[in-house]
Amino acid sequence: MQVLFAAPASMWEEWSEPLVAACPEMRLSRDGDPAGFDAIIYAPGGEIEDLSPYRNARLVQSLWAGVERIVGNPTLTQPLARMVDPGLARGMAEYCTGWTMRGHLEMDRYAQDGTWRNGQIPPLAPERHVTILGMGELGRATAGMLSGIGFSVTGWSASGRPVEGIETLGATDLDRALERAEILVTLLPDTAATRGLMDADRLARLPKGAWLINPGRGTLLDDDALIGSLDAGHLGHAVLDVFRTEPLPADHPFWSHPRITVTPHIAADTRPETASLVVAENLRRAMSGRPILNLVDREKGY
Amino acid sequence: MQVLFAAPASMWEEWSEPLVAACPEMRLSRDGDPAGFDAIIYAPGGEIEDLSPYRNARLVQSLWAGVERIVGNPTLTQPLARMVDPGLARGMAEYCTGWTMRGHLEMDRYAQDGTWRNGQIPPLAPERHVTILGMGELGRATAGMLSGIGFSVTGWSASGRPVEGIETLGATDLDRALERAEILVTLLPDTAATRGLMDADRLARLPKGAWLINPGRGTLLDDDALIGSLDAGHLGHAVLDVFRTEPLPADHPFWSHPRITVTPHIAADTRPETASLVVAENLRRAMSGRPILNLVDREKGY
Repeated sequence: MQVLFAAPASMWEEWSEPLVAACPEMRLSRDGDPAGFDAIIYAPGGEIEDLSPYRNARLVQSLWAGVERIVGNPTLTQPLARMVDPGLARGMAEYCTGWTMRGHLEMDRYAQDGTWRNGQIPPLAPERHVTILGMGELGRATAGMLSGIGFSVTGWSASGRPVEGIETLGATDLDRALERAEILVTLLPDTAATRGLMDADRLARLPKGAWLINPGRGTLLDDDALIGSLDAGHLGHAVLDVFRTEPLPADHPFWSHPRITVTPHIAADTRPETASLVVAENLRRAMSGRPILNLVDREKGY
Repeated sequence: MQVLFAAPASMWEEWSEPLVAACPEMRLSRDGDPAGFDAIIYAPGGEIEDLSPYRNARLVQSLWAGVERIVGNPTLTQPLARMVDPGLARGMAEYCTGWTMRGHLEMDRYAQDGTWRNGQIPPLAPERHVTILGMGELGRATAGMLSGIGFSVTGWSASGRPVEGIETLGATDLDRALERAEILVTLLPDTAATRGLMDADRLARLPKGAWLINPGRGTLLDDDALIGSLDAGHLGHAVLDVFRTEPLPADHPFWSHPRITVTPHIAADTRPETASLVVAENLRRAMSGRPILNLVDREKGY
């Protein structure tokens, strides 16, 4: 099996070894006769833009969960699979849980200035309402971890498909999902329907003092509306891991805003060790004509 | 039933209403003929030091989990019960979980200075070792919450009594419990055996870069050894909620140390609403001669 590694050169060192270890029957290379490749392993930022010469490739397997930088490529005619790495879902759930706990426990109230501020203590988790927008693989893993701790969790997704043990709301109930969100975790894909979803009106629906944690996609937020809501004293704090431009430019106002915490797109890095096993399974499925896992729906865009 | 409220005046406002609501048959007052009281509700810092005139009291019910400020009182001859508030155990578990997540996710690595630091990501929780010293009510609740998230948890207690689902080590295995503790949570009572337990030698047993989270008792730590270990680059960070002197004096070096986070004894505040139900149950038990819950063993001191 000939497989093209179509990803930035910087990823080769980290990925080639675990990929080949997971799938020893594959011959992985970074170039060669396009027609000779049986499959493509893809991540954004590599050199290959035109996929049409790879006419024998039976699978384009993304190493990223988000596929918005390839799904609209008109030269892509091959089946495209997203990365659904079990390590990635766990990493995301841990990130969301950690920052939810930081907001919930009001850790930042305790400035290290010599003042003993032992007044009002925060409510316990069962009295704290967390809403998760997006109940895909990552949203469900996060909802499970948060409800395991005891938080009162609402899941919202366009489909409203029920998730066991979690109250789940659908498309028409977005306002209800927002109105109760003392902590809002956004894990939506980047699609036409989600772009700019969290605008001034929707931010205003959140309870006063709410935390917004966005490790999903930067396009979800109206950046100016976010800063406006924080400055007006409505939104309490925003933790942002994804941005419209990455790396976030050093002079972007998010960096210096006292109520914004920037993390550098680390919430759910794909782990090569676990992800390579998923790649191997999907390559074998594609070669033997069995159903491909995590196939992207081109219309939905994820 | 006549009950004396022997606690600082500042607590009366917060406690009297939930206590009477939980136990309407009680007549609660702050003074009166000592011989007329059937029971005492106690918290440190009140005016009553000599308990001998309260000769008809069948129970001294502490509102605090820690009883070191009364257990050694030579005038105390009545049965003494600690507070074991289900809300308190949950609050403690949440505090420990939140700060464990902060250390685990290495949140403090992401200074808000415009630099995009997306290098090495931390391991996942199953690869992160947390040790809990003290496996009483609070330790068990914390161990349960952390192992629910997926952390690799070791519990240590003097008895080594097994706890379901948690690897538990006993007295002679303290070094082993420390050596694996990337994050150490200390929830030991204040007794002769625990005072100064975390001295320079024991801090040195922790892995380099370890976090220490102490919401138990301030006497556990050798304060100078703690600062020494942090300054030498061995211990990574300390989160301290309890101190030898409280409130922690404004000029104490803990406040300004860059690797120490001080919280003002808020990890497990007793919640009047849930704790009052426990008080009511114990008062009724004492009055009817049934076994008292959470009775303090005077020899052990807790």
